[in-house]
Amino acid sequence: MRLGLDVGGTKTDAVAVAPDGAIVARTRLATGWGPDAVVQTILAAVSGLCADPALATADIRSVGIGIPGRIEPGSGRVEHAVNLGVETLDLAAAVAPALGVPVRVENDVKAAALGAASLRGGTQSMGYLNLGTGMAAAVVTDGVLWRGARGGAGEIGHLSIDPAGPVCRCGQRGCIEALAGGGAVSARWGKPGALPIRDIFDAADAGDAAAVRLRTDLARGVAAAIRVLVLTADVDTVVLGGGITALGTRLEAQVAAQLETSAHESAFLRSLQLVDRVEILPVGAPAAALGAALIGAEAADEREVLSHG
Amino acid sequence: MRLGLDVGGTKTDAVAVAPDGAIVARTRLATGWGPDAVVQTILAAVSGLCADPALATADIRSVGIGIPGRIEPGSGRVEHAVNLGVETLDLAAAVAPALGVPVRVENDVKAAALGAASLRGGTQSMGYLNLGTGMAAAVVTDGVLWRGARGGAGEIGHLSIDPAGPVCRCGQRGCIEALAGGGAVSARWGKPGALPIRDIFDAADAGDAAAVRLRTDLARGVAAAIRVLVLTADVDTVVLGGGITALGTRLEAQVAAQLETSAHESAFLRSLQLVDRVEILPVGAPAAALGAALIGAEAADEREVLSHG
Repeated sequence: MRLGLDVGGTKTDAVAVAPDGAIVARTRLATGWGPDAVVQTILAAVSGLCADPALATADIRSVGIGIPGRIEPGSGRVEHAVNLGVETLDLAAAVAPALGVPVRVENDVKAAALGAASLRGGTQSMGYLNLGTGMAAAVVTDGVLWRGARGGAGEIGHLSIDPAGPVCRCGQRGCIEALAGGGAVSARWGKPGALPIRDIFDAADAGDAAAVRLRTDLARGVAAAIRVLVLTADVDTVVLGGGITALGTRLEAQVAAQLETSAHESAFLRSLQLVDRVEILPVGAPAAALGAALIGAEAADEREVLSHG
Repeated sequence: MRLGLDVGGTKTDAVAVAPDGAIVARTRLATGWGPDAVVQTILAAVSGLCADPALATADIRSVGIGIPGRIEPGSGRVEHAVNLGVETLDLAAAVAPALGVPVRVENDVKAAALGAASLRGGTQSMGYLNLGTGMAAAVVTDGVLWRGARGGAGEIGHLSIDPAGPVCRCGQRGCIEALAGGGAVSARWGKPGALPIRDIFDAADAGDAAAVRLRTDLARGVAAAIRVLVLTADVDTVVLGGGITALGTRLEAQVAAQLETSAHESAFLRSLQLVDRVEILPVGAPAAALGAALIGAEAADEREVLSHG
């Protein structure tokens, strides 16, 4: 049995995956704040899964953890997971002694990409675009995640698409994330509310000009990110995930309108049939936790090769 | 012995590659115009190589051809090679009977990327950015070319980075190619001359305001393309090739200035150290012909697996 955890800013989602890839148990709990509380959350999530009757006699082979922030390639160390109150944490070293199995740590967007590809099945290439507080992407081809040379693959949120666009928290102008990242859009909206992006869509539907502008910018940014993934990596499909995709068809329609505008302008873009290549990850799908379990399994497989080979 | 040909708009470059990867013969000749003349050019280039004393007793195992235009993945068919006067041509079928060995056809930029990676050596990931009449890119990781799902990987020239930028031949505004493609820049300059990009750099050095603007736009476009490759695929190095790189350090300095501006604005971009990750392919390096030979060798290897396996 492989365990996979997705440690999010508010919730931690944990699954147990059988050797055939089926999810046999799942648990969710609130994520604690700061390094110690994050470690305790992870241990509690594993205990919660192990208490599931489906795992009563199962052998736990590995634990994979998806978590926001930068993960040094090949290490289990997390940096700049600001939404968790973690500046730096050697997470694998902190949890492995208590767990007693190989632990692997990966950026949550990369884990979600791998999980989404597994949930979709097949071997087609897939780009995953995470629309959350920030914006980042990952690419999976033949079931393999592209990690890049220095762990920075998929940071397309910081490509500028408009030199006259809003200033990004990174310092540039017109970054895709400045137009379409949930945090940046909420800050530009500037009104309180638990679901600011939904409020913006509602206000735009009611004719509020500022909301219409923000909604259009958001869709422009998402459409640009989709084009970046297809024109660079030529992925078959781009799957959208992350909190903003809870807007479902309301988001999809805005993004499709932007893609159709560029397809109308350009025969080349029209030939790419981008609208047909975009999907939204079903709400509640355990993509990141499943992907984390698959990444943990890689670690265990490598250890077995080392000890047997 | 593997033969590799780079069929360019004006010249065709052909090399013979020994089993150890060494280039043992090279010939160049003018490319004919139109499908029949292109086929004759290829046969003449192969004859020319075979006449080289180094190939006197050699066994030719495969021929690989790099050529502009769109190549249907897995086919030997070329489409839209406008600079060669070729609308559509089943090139592999047209030359294979006369050659009597496996023939494989690939887009010239993809062939050049593979050849450039081979010339550099090592297994680090590499993006290749071709600065010619148009602008396109390719990525090589672990010696393997990313072809993408539908043969469109690397068409980053048609990503828009400025909604107020010049109209691209594709129909969009502010495409990278509209800012930095040799054809687009020459058209905006509008003055006759055999080397219009060099003329623009010369005029900019002399203080011509229009030339300074075009030169800055060109460097902006190249810098954006470099960021796209690194932020999407996180390649270790971006190698610049194609006709415009004949400007050498004059080009490099302009591009570095643009990359430094964004690094100054953004700590995130600064952390990527982009200036240090850019290289120019040496002028005259037979990257595309060598890459084509390597691609042809793949075809022969696959046939051997089929017949022996």
